[in-house]
Amino acid sequence: MDYDTPLFFHVMQYAAAADRDVIDMVSGNPDWEPPEALRDGLREYADADPDAFQYPPSDGLRELREEVAARRGVDADRIVITNGAGEANYLAMAAALERDAGDEILLTDPVYPYYPGKARMLGADPRLVPVADDGDLDVAAMREAAGPNTAAILINSPNNPTGAVYDADTVAAMIDIAEANDALLLSDEVYDHYDFSGRFESALAVDSAHAVVTNSFSKSMAITGLRVGYAVFPPHLVEAARTRHMLVNVTGARPSQVAVLRALRETGAEYYEASRDLLRKRVDAFTDALDAAGAEYLHPDGAFYVFARFEGFPGTLENVERLVDEAGVACMPGDTFGTYDEWVRFALVTPRAEEAAERLADHDF
Amino acid sequence: MDYDTPLFFHVMQYAAAADRDVIDMVSGNPDWEPPEALRDGLREYADADPDAFQYPPSDGLRELREEVAARRGVDADRIVITNGAGEANYLAMAAALERDAGDEILLTDPVYPYYPGKARMLGADPRLVPVADDGDLDVAAMREAAGPNTAAILINSPNNPTGAVYDADTVAAMIDIAEANDALLLSDEVYDHYDFSGRFESALAVDSAHAVVTNSFSKSMAITGLRVGYAVFPPHLVEAARTRHMLVNVTGARPSQVAVLRALRETGAEYYEASRDLLRKRVDAFTDALDAAGAEYLHPDGAFYVFARFEGFPGTLENVERLVDEAGVACMPGDTFGTYDEWVRFALVTPRAEEAAERLADHDF
Repeated sequence: MDYDTPLFFHVMQYAAAADRDVIDMVSGNPDWEPPEALRDGLREYADADPDAFQYPPSDGLRELREEVAARRGVDADRIVITNGAGEANYLAMAAALERDAGDEILLTDPVYPYYPGKARMLGADPRLVPVADDGDLDVAAMREAAGPNTAAILINSPNNPTGAVYDADTVAAMIDIAEANDALLLSDEVYDHYDFSGRFESALAVDSAHAVVTNSFSKSMAITGLRVGYAVFPPHLVEAARTRHMLVNVTGARPSQVAVLRALRETGAEYYEASRDLLRKRVDAFTDALDAAGAEYLHPDGAFYVFARFEGFPGTLENVERLVDEAGVACMPGDTFGTYDEWVRFALVTPRAEEAAERLADHDF
Repeated sequence: MDYDTPLFFHVMQYAAAADRDVIDMVSGNPDWEPPEALRDGLREYADADPDAFQYPPSDGLRELREEVAARRGVDADRIVITNGAGEANYLAMAAALERDAGDEILLTDPVYPYYPGKARMLGADPRLVPVADDGDLDVAAMREAAGPNTAAILINSPNNPTGAVYDADTVAAMIDIAEANDALLLSDEVYDHYDFSGRFESALAVDSAHAVVTNSFSKSMAITGLRVGYAVFPPHLVEAARTRHMLVNVTGARPSQVAVLRALRETGAEYYEASRDLLRKRVDAFTDALDAAGAEYLHPDGAFYVFARFEGFPGTLENVERLVDEAGVACMPGDTFGTYDEWVRFALVTPRAEEAAERLADHDF
């Protein structure tokens, strides 16, 4: 199994070892506060009776599944609470492949590197389909690429790393392609709270037996370490997913589920709006600086990354390391995300994003 | 994938719906207090800075790995912190199968039902080898069964459901069999704190490139819901296991890891002794009552189950349900654990174990 995380760690380690101040724009860890109710949930749990320390139901606390179901407008029995979206995507891909309807998984290029890694681990053949020049999904190219051997098409909106947000027509078209090829459309929507465009549409908007939606609270509540995610399966696929979840993990961590449940119930819209506004301002300041630096970039409509390239400065590991040493900014080489070796990705989850932008504007590329 | 947990749930649901008081001896959830330091760890975490809510290292908090490494006498780099022993066993089986050295996994009969379920999910062929009449491992039968197609031999000591504890000679012989067949010996030691015999030996006692040890804090700290376990791999297998762990789960839950770390550091031997003593007393009282009832059983040297059979009362689901209705005691049908359809398993993780024993002694089988 080849997988690019060593490169990810490599850049972080290189930045940490650098002989100067470096602004870390590598990792995707939110830097803002989790909801106060989440902390309250953990405090409450710490004092609970011993039986609260034992296995929750394998597919998650019933109340949490119901809370999620009500928000997503689906039956709670279609939901499996997972160890983050990481496990949810793993279960979704496995569900697609267990159908014996081909072993190819279509992904976008650029692509979040976990997807091809997971696909290969499950014995599938990941195939990258380039996005449009503006970063939007190329629906026609996807339709062209899909065929009898396509088990699944995985999309991610708002997108990491492009920041593209797929609208209702796009999502409906993708489900149509999946249905036409007896494939599953897997829609990873972990950044759904960070849509700056207002155009985001969930794949749950279409009632289809060929769509699986994955999500987590890692990004929306700034709690990547709590590991609470979920997958919404079509009714006929949920039982097999539940079995695999049980055989791999038994169940997810209960303190995390209790804390997320309380946070879901008690956190108002203003919490989510505040993080979205914070990110929108960072995006604006950062892209203004990129304009000043003469960089090309995909303007993000959502999520919290900026995918960019600088004239005469391909996004190789060597150049990324030079940028650490010379500009004090650490980012990810573009070929981590597919074939985009001219590009780099900046994560805007640092209060120093604007300062980083100024450093880039001052840097002589 | 067929898997017996639906039966497990079925019995629990049947017991819960019964029109009388029922003592639940089905599930393996400890009923005693977790360490106080574990609660303190959760409280401390609830007040931590936002960055403590983000991803821990994929293979677990460094301090936790080092704490475990020091206790087990191994290098921390051989340890992957997992989502409970469930994931640890999944990673261990996958590591054995990825070696392309056969697709058979030898298990004992009776067997913990997750093992054959996991093996089949990974595409392996589970093969059950009967234990000796007293429940002890039949090393000669294992040696006979192992061959070129054996990828792994999985043992569990102290054993669920037999209560057998494997001594140093047995463990060394099993590692020898694994080495002779280029297989991996997978040793699941989750009940290691509940050895009443003093004979328990870990597979880590033998320095072998063919042994993987799995464990968790679920049973020793009475926290099955926190999902913190680990696997100790030979150095040449750890990287692939880390990759699979990352691709399936990204990482485990951080609040749970922080709490376990604090509990490991601050909990004295008296905590573990108290739970062991509690269980020993329950085993004695329960087996005395089984003697009075004329039942046959395997006397447990460890863990917290009693595997028993009653003359003329095979452990079918129908009989288990009759026992719920007529005696007010819920247990697990024996064929859940392999081919032992004459038997039933009682879990002694209820303060009412002695009362249950009296009900059984009074029951007309």
